[in-house]
Amino acid sequence: MATITTLKQRSLLGLKDLDKEEIVSILDRAAYWEGQADKVQPVIPGKFVANMFFENSTRTRFSFEVAEKRLGAEVLNFSAAVSSVQKGESIYDTVRTLESMGIDVGVIRLKPIGVLAELATKIKVPLINAGDGNNEHPTQALLDLYTMRKHFGELKGLTVSIIGDVLHSRVARSNLYALRKFGVNVKFCAPGNMASADLDAPYVSIDEALQSDVVMMLRVQLERHEHGIIKSAEDYREHYGLTVERAKRLAPHAIIMHPAPINRGVEIDDELVEHPQSRIFPQMQNGVPIRMAVIERALS
Amino acid sequence: MATITTLKQRSLLGLKDLDKEEIVSILDRAAYWEGQADKVQPVIPGKFVANMFFENSTRTRFSFEVAEKRLGAEVLNFSAAVSSVQKGESIYDTVRTLESMGIDVGVIRLKPIGVLAELATKIKVPLINAGDGNNEHPTQALLDLYTMRKHFGELKGLTVSIIGDVLHSRVARSNLYALRKFGVNVKFCAPGNMASADLDAPYVSIDEALQSDVVMMLRVQLERHEHGIIKSAEDYREHYGLTVERAKRLAPHAIIMHPAPINRGVEIDDELVEHPQSRIFPQMQNGVPIRMAVIERALS
Amino acid sequence: MATITTLKQRSLLGLKDLDKEEIVSILDRAAYWEGQADKVQPVIPGKFVANMFFENSTRTRFSFEVAEKRLGAEVLNFSAAVSSVQKGESIYDTVRTLESMGIDVGVIRLKPIGVLAELATKIKVPLINAGDGNNEHPTQALLDLYTMRKHFGELKGLTVSIIGDVLHSRVARSNLYALRKFGVNVKFCAPGNMASADLDAPYVSIDEALQSDVVMMLRVQLERHEHGIIKSAEDYREHYGLTVERAKRLAPHAIIMHPAPINRGVEIDDELVEHPQSRIFPQMQNGVPIRMAVIERALS
Repeated sequence: MATITTLKQRSLLGLKDLDKEEIVSILDRAAYWEGQADKVQPVIPGKFVANMFFENSTRTRFSFEVAEKRLGAEVLNFSAAVSSVQKGESIYDTVRTLESMGIDVGVIRLKPIGVLAELATKIKVPLINAGDGNNEHPTQALLDLYTMRKHFGELKGLTVSIIGDVLHSRVARSNLYALRKFGVNVKFCAPGNMASADLDAPYVSIDEALQSDVVMMLRVQLERHEHGIIKSAEDYREHYGLTVERAKRLAPHAIIMHPAPINRGVEIDDELVEHPQSRIFPQMQNGVPIRMAVIERALS
Repeated sequence: MATITTLKQRSLLGLKDLDKEEIVSILDRAAYWEGQADKVQPVIPGKFVANMFFENSTRTRFSFEVAEKRLGAEVLNFSAAVSSVQKGESIYDTVRTLESMGIDVGVIRLKPIGVLAELATKIKVPLINAGDGNNEHPTQALLDLYTMRKHFGELKGLTVSIIGDVLHSRVARSNLYALRKFGVNVKFCAPGNMASADLDAPYVSIDEALQSDVVMMLRVQLERHEHGIIKSAEDYREHYGLTVERAKRLAPHAIIMHPAPINRGVEIDDELVEHPQSRIFPQMQNGVPIRMAVIERALS
Repeated sequence: MATITTLKQRSLLGLKDLDKEEIVSILDRAAYWEGQADKVQPVIPGKFVANMFFENSTRTRFSFEVAEKRLGAEVLNFSAAVSSVQKGESIYDTVRTLESMGIDVGVIRLKPIGVLAELATKIKVPLINAGDGNNEHPTQALLDLYTMRKHFGELKGLTVSIIGDVLHSRVARSNLYALRKFGVNVKFCAPGNMASADLDAPYVSIDEALQSDVVMMLRVQLERHEHGIIKSAEDYREHYGLTVERAKRLAPHAIIMHPAPINRGVEIDDELVEHPQSRIFPQMQNGVPIRMAVIERALS
């Protein structure tokens, strides 16, 4: 049982059940890594990390890969598009196969809901959630908290508005779980058909959302347009987009965030992506030390 | 001529013409690697190994990649889906290109029959067969022998039944060639349209096949169903699948093997994949030290 | 301003504006690397190089990857086919993302014209052009010059004929720019609809082109056949291909070059690819030390 507990402690499946102290310790370790002049420090030599992406990704996969290589790990990259998954092999069999070959940690992204939680009960190496359907995306939320803490000094008392497709967003979910632990006031702003009934946070108008310390814009999945969920990109921008005009109403100390990839001109105007108040590319920069801390923790 | 002989000796194209002593020496070296506590031991630093997969693969490619990295090699991964092969470049030109760039060993999987043998006469670096059409798959058979030797202590006198699409199986072929050299009694069990006329081993019924020390289930290529070769997955399972019911008739000391990927519920029932008598995931584990031994040999 | 100038000097966007002395220094450094017995010499440890291919490539990407690994760099491979680009992310956002994650150099291939030049004004790390639409392909031309210099001792006074689709060829363009700086007499030979009006070099007949020290055959893009630009592969071969018969008319000291991938039997006959006068595979071999020199320079 000791081993199972330890394994569970070293995995990172979500932030819902992670202690505030654990989160602080990851953020602090990330700050340590960010401060290091030497990019590569082989603290985990000879360890194999498998990046198993059953869903496409650029940003998250590369962020993990950079983090792993900075720690001196051996990296295996698996992406579903060029594999036996095309021959119908199950996700479990693929992960179990890589486990058999001796990987020490698995970083995993997948679409079907519930599969990751089940995998974690069967696989004997720590798993790191790199995006789990509509459920959680813990390393994204950790880098978001890190970015906020860096700008504001502390999280307690901040107001954070998360704007867009809350219903389908693992980013919104992980941020809500984590920010709450730090006494952050989280608000959602979403069209009715993108609001989640099971997430306990108040919904506000876009005008009220702009009165926050942080406005976090979510990606619009334009594919949903086909299903009539979005009327059009223009309509979405008009009602829920962070336009240049709306950005003028932000407080001078407020920051703009977005998990990316970005639909420029839909949920956020082109001119705002690299605006002085935007932290969008710094978020990506912060992702690397966060993931170094998370992988190091998995192997500790 | 000396160089050509040496090159041929360092390549691994198949097991048909490989001496028993050579096979034993590979198995012994794999056992050495399996026993090492330090995962990475850079015995071939600065050597470049190219994994050239002209056919999709998860298992075999990762197994080679882990083996190569454990030996400290530099690894290049080529897969046909994202390359100039789409522009019609020939396999020869691709391999010759990588050779020109200074690779030290090539691991190669391809579909067209006869191409590998021809390549080996033209390319000046050792080639390792990672799956050659319907011909041979020597590293798979080597890891199978390793798995059997590990369980039974020695191979001589064992009875091994290989069940399924023998006609199209490079695994069946390589196993037959290798096992025979060790005095193993090999039997096939296959539907009439999946039996090979040119392989000299007796065909037995599924009931007789179950009376063996090893039952090796082959993957059914469900694509063949379209061509009327298989009536249905259910029908195949009924006549040739290792069902839970049939598994009860195995001797207590017998083991179940499968080269994977697995069609759970077709050639083998779901519950048997991780059954105590199954060696399916251990086979994958054994693949790594086997491939370390084969690559080391290629560079010796 | 100093930093911007330095960055521009360390990037390699094209040869048009590169000094002859700079080119000589790259060729000389490549010769140094070619002469090294130890394949891997970690002169840039801890540096991250991202290979960002927004267009398919085998040869060029592997050549860069071998070069980077021989220098001891950490390598990230991005190819557009398996990424967020499929979700409509712009090239700029992808490159900016990798920059944010801390890469030290970016090697980039892309199709749209003008994008690379614009990227280079916005991205703060050196960029190396690995093929830029129909514009330039500087490392290819550098390895071509290297190959010629190696054979002839010096470039001055040579006659080089470039034969084929000059209009769409970044190879022709970069070679013209570079060879001119060395006093090489460059001639083009092309069908009327493949001739470029903006490149200042004389067009000659195929017969006259054969009277050169170097005949450089360009790849025919057979896709163009569909658009009626090429009548047929046979017709192209008859009028512009380097056939066995035509090769007999080459001077004994002349060499045959081709940037590859090759359409055997179209722009060049099969028998000539590895003919004693061909330098096609040596070109690929020379690409590695050239790219080592270019990456080293980017990080100096």
